[in-house]
Amino acid sequence: MAKKRPLILVTNDDGITAPGIRALIEVMNTIGDVYVVAPDAPQSAMGHAITINDTLYCNKLKVTKDEPQQEYSCSGTPVDCVKLAVNEILKRKPDLCVSGVNHGSNSSINVIYSGTMSAAVEAGTLGIPSIGFSLLDYSLEADFEPAKKYIKLLVNQCIENGLPKGVVLNVNIPKLSAKEIKGVKVCRQANAHWEEKFDKRTNPLGRDYYWLTGEFVNNDKGEDTDEWALANGFVSVVPVQFDLTAHHAIKDINTWELS
Amino acid sequence: MAKKRPLILVTNDDGITAPGIRALIEVMNTIGDVYVVAPDAPQSAMGHAITINDTLYCNKLKVTKDEPQQEYSCSGTPVDCVKLAVNEILKRKPDLCVSGVNHGSNSSINVIYSGTMSAAVEAGTLGIPSIGFSLLDYSLEADFEPAKKYIKLLVNQCIENGLPKGVVLNVNIPKLSAKEIKGVKVCRQANAHWEEKFDKRTNPLGRDYYWLTGEFVNNDKGEDTDEWALANGFVSVVPVQFDLTAHHAIKDINTWELS
Repeated sequence: MAKKRPLILVTNDDGITAPGIRALIEVMNTIGDVYVVAPDAPQSAMGHAITINDTLYCNKLKVTKDEPQQEYSCSGTPVDCVKLAVNEILKRKPDLCVSGVNHGSNSSINVIYSGTMSAAVEAGTLGIPSIGFSLLDYSLEADFEPAKKYIKLLVNQCIENGLPKGVVLNVNIPKLSAKEIKGVKVCRQANAHWEEKFDKRTNPLGRDYYWLTGEFVNNDKGEDTDEWALANGFVSVVPVQFDLTAHHAIKDINTWELS
Repeated sequence: MAKKRPLILVTNDDGITAPGIRALIEVMNTIGDVYVVAPDAPQSAMGHAITINDTLYCNKLKVTKDEPQQEYSCSGTPVDCVKLAVNEILKRKPDLCVSGVNHGSNSSINVIYSGTMSAAVEAGTLGIPSIGFSLLDYSLEADFEPAKKYIKLLVNQCIENGLPKGVVLNVNIPKLSAKEIKGVKVCRQANAHWEEKFDKRTNPLGRDYYWLTGEFVNNDKGEDTDEWALANGFVSVVPVQFDLTAHHAIKDINTWELS
């Protein structure tokens, strides 16, 4: 008996027309029945934002004759897209949610700013196995070909093995040729941060304003981190949880005088 | 010799004019030298969003003669406010960052949607001890008086004891009178989630749109959770980490066939 094809929800934060999501859709079409519900405009760095004080619009898009997927664009954030897809668009809970492929890294601390990963996390909170994919190349002309092999491998393994409860995957792919990529490493999130620099300017009316710029600082020398893996030619896979409790710190805080 | 007064950054996500932040400023003025850098408009449910494709404006506000704090309103998100404050406004790294008091709960899974907590987490990534405060009352007329005692207690304990590295606090305060609040409990984040319901409507031009609504579902019966503490009259304190790695899952994922 043929195995039932999985129902796959595809989303991203760069918007439904981004090359990264087109690459992801192409791979997912080889694996399952694909519904795309993604923002109608770029939503980078939106984190886990949701739309609570505004309306949400959702449009069914036409796809070309030889494309099997269904596509919907949504006026909201990546997390809105997941909520709308699961509750209003898909006929049943999807077997898998994939988000991306993001144009740019979501490794290390970037996971907390990332709309791509927030969409994956949102699906995770709904009990849906979920993976966010990012390529370390911000360019619109980025080459997603070398990434496809690893996306397929990881999605198939995820379908076969399942994911531990409360865990989603953060997958980052180095900007390298297929030959140069050395393989896959399961990692922890590097303990890095951003040091911001604001570019202060004056507008034509004489009012000061700022542009946010920053430098990524990684002082974590561990060889078990995503930053190490990526710098050494590996695809990094970090299992990410949305129980943010620092369980190890509960004992510490309980020594405080709190009565 | 008198102890040096700590430099305290105050922010929130309900906007600089919200009653919750006014209550927090009042308490912080009794403890240290206060700089307020907060959004010029409500930014609820913004999660860890940052402004990367737009300008940021920042205005120094006038305070009344008898108010000692400095105040700045910012056109960005709560996380933008923290970045701007630390890099452009404050003369040195603050000794503490407090965010809130949020109008409404940020307990359990709400921590991942919360602008209040994202501001606290951002300060945490910069190495600043940091606490987010929320009152379980959405009303603009909420009574913040009973909360003030616990805010003062927790901030003083935080200054005295410090926080473990990579940990910030998520403090939620029940909507109860001073007499009814039973004390403080250090907790873990309850394993709860939102079940969304979308209210589908048609606009005057005949186009469908949605309002996001939802129901909070908590099937976690543990008595060590924030939900239990709040339901039983306690102030909940959850230590929150921004290393999202599910360390326990690394071994599992390493059993996958990844080569």
